[in-house]
Amino acid sequence: MSLNRVTVIGLGLMGGSLALALRRAGMAAHIAGCGRVALLDRAREMDAIDSGSVDAGEAVTKSDFVFLCTPVETSIKLMAQIAPRLKPGALVTDVGSTKNAFAAAAREIFGAAANQRVLPGHPLAGREVSGLEHASVDLYAGCLWVLTPVDGAREKDFTPGQRELVAALKAIGARVTFSTPEEHDRTLAYTSHLPQMLSTALSLTLEQAFGQGNPALQVHAGGLRTMLRLAESDPAMWEQIADSNQANLAKALERMEAELRKLRESLGSAEFRKKFEQGREFAKFLKIPRE
Amino acid sequence: MSLNRVTVIGLGLMGGSLALALRRAGMAAHIAGCGRVALLDRAREMDAIDSGSVDAGEAVTKSDFVFLCTPVETSIKLMAQIAPRLKPGALVTDVGSTKNAFAAAAREIFGAAANQRVLPGHPLAGREVSGLEHASVDLYAGCLWVLTPVDGAREKDFTPGQRELVAALKAIGARVTFSTPEEHDRTLAYTSHLPQMLSTALSLTLEQAFGQGNPALQVHAGGLRTMLRLAESDPAMWEQIADSNQANLAKALERMEAELRKLRESLGSAEFRKKFEQGREFAKFLKIPRE
Repeated sequence: MSLNRVTVIGLGLMGGSLALALRRAGMAAHIAGCGRVALLDRAREMDAIDSGSVDAGEAVTKSDFVFLCTPVETSIKLMAQIAPRLKPGALVTDVGSTKNAFAAAAREIFGAAANQRVLPGHPLAGREVSGLEHASVDLYAGCLWVLTPVDGAREKDFTPGQRELVAALKAIGARVTFSTPEEHDRTLAYTSHLPQMLSTALSLTLEQAFGQGNPALQVHAGGLRTMLRLAESDPAMWEQIADSNQANLAKALERMEAELRKLRESLGSAEFRKKFEQGREFAKFLKIPRE
Repeated sequence: MSLNRVTVIGLGLMGGSLALALRRAGMAAHIAGCGRVALLDRAREMDAIDSGSVDAGEAVTKSDFVFLCTPVETSIKLMAQIAPRLKPGALVTDVGSTKNAFAAAAREIFGAAANQRVLPGHPLAGREVSGLEHASVDLYAGCLWVLTPVDGAREKDFTPGQRELVAALKAIGARVTFSTPEEHDRTLAYTSHLPQMLSTALSLTLEQAFGQGNPALQVHAGGLRTMLRLAESDPAMWEQIADSNQANLAKALERMEAELRKLRESLGSAEFRKKFEQGREFAKFLKIPRE
């Protein structure tokens, strides 16, 4: 089973890695790419794509599956742009970090057919680097890939194309799971977007307290390196994530601010130790494997 | 050059690793250990120590150098306890994560001689695990080891014993640097204690938002694993760190809370992107190597 003809729109870390992985797994007879000319050239050199176009509408005309691999808001605009050019029955999916806005746009663009024509997705495989030069055929190996059917369809109701997509994602090593767009975005506000904001805000706090070029900051250990790693992530991508999940993220940040304040107010009292132990237990409870 | 006879008080991750490293580097003719009986037995089996005692006073009587490798407040109590039993001219040092309280205790205990008899230290080599079973002969290889002379003495004023200590730390691979107790504690509040509190508070936030056993939390990626790693650290150690650096840490937490609030308030505005980019630049500027 193969997806036959595929278009990957956006040849960055996510799209480039996806094309490479589909190719290696034999999941596509033809991969068309869409991106800037220099990216198309580079993607061809890497044998990630068979043909290329700078125009998204042109890139999708012959394809059975279209992967939108750009930041959330860009993918929404592109979906509207490609919709009239799609082959009948072609399936659209994406790799965006939030799903509510994308699912809503799918409903608007495809109407009653949205649930059949679009199957939004989110592979949890981001890195703090971006760009085709960091693309890796193994990026999705073992990663969780959340599919969020537009109107909450179950797997048993999937179209044949949607089943083929699931099979292809498994073939490239992803662990496929299902959620609703709403639940996905609420959860990710805490498990992905909040951790990112903490790292960024920690960096801002250090700058505010020390200023640039202060040699005192060289006195740090592994903990700081760990906590600042995410701060190097791509601002363009995160602006769109934050914009498209604003209410959930604001709520998560408010809760985090409250927990920090309570921890601060517990300093010097027995409550501090209790809180520290509670945080430790919960972190262990999550059974998160060490990196 | 060797430290001749050494006592290591506290045979956990730090003390155990130190004994192993001094041994391998040939920096001690005799290593006496102090700890609970089971730890002494285990440390002997590992060839980390030559002799052992459960009594700190007894453990130090013949030694030229004493390393206090227990949590900050414990080390302060032990310093008072061993002071009358020390050989004349023996040098006391420690590996505590905060230095103000320890330096103040040294002044109280040793009076005018504190600057000669004690040289407080802090190797930035902590891990989120603890205990002798995690001790490693390489723990201090390449790590920054901050020495904070009690009354701000310069290296040129050091006693011969203090110079020998510096040489021995370099021999086990540490990068020795100097600071004052005050500057050390202010800096570490931001570069070590604040990152720890963030990780703990993030764990508490997740528990508050989801509760235990919520399968939604399995939908997370590497970023969350990274940011929760520190939350698994030892509560007993961190209680003492927080207690002994309360004012600096409270200030750092207040600043962090303010930065988080400002980032939240910037959601949906151009200011968000600006802040995100600023945080990214500063994190890169710190030239912190990737792990």
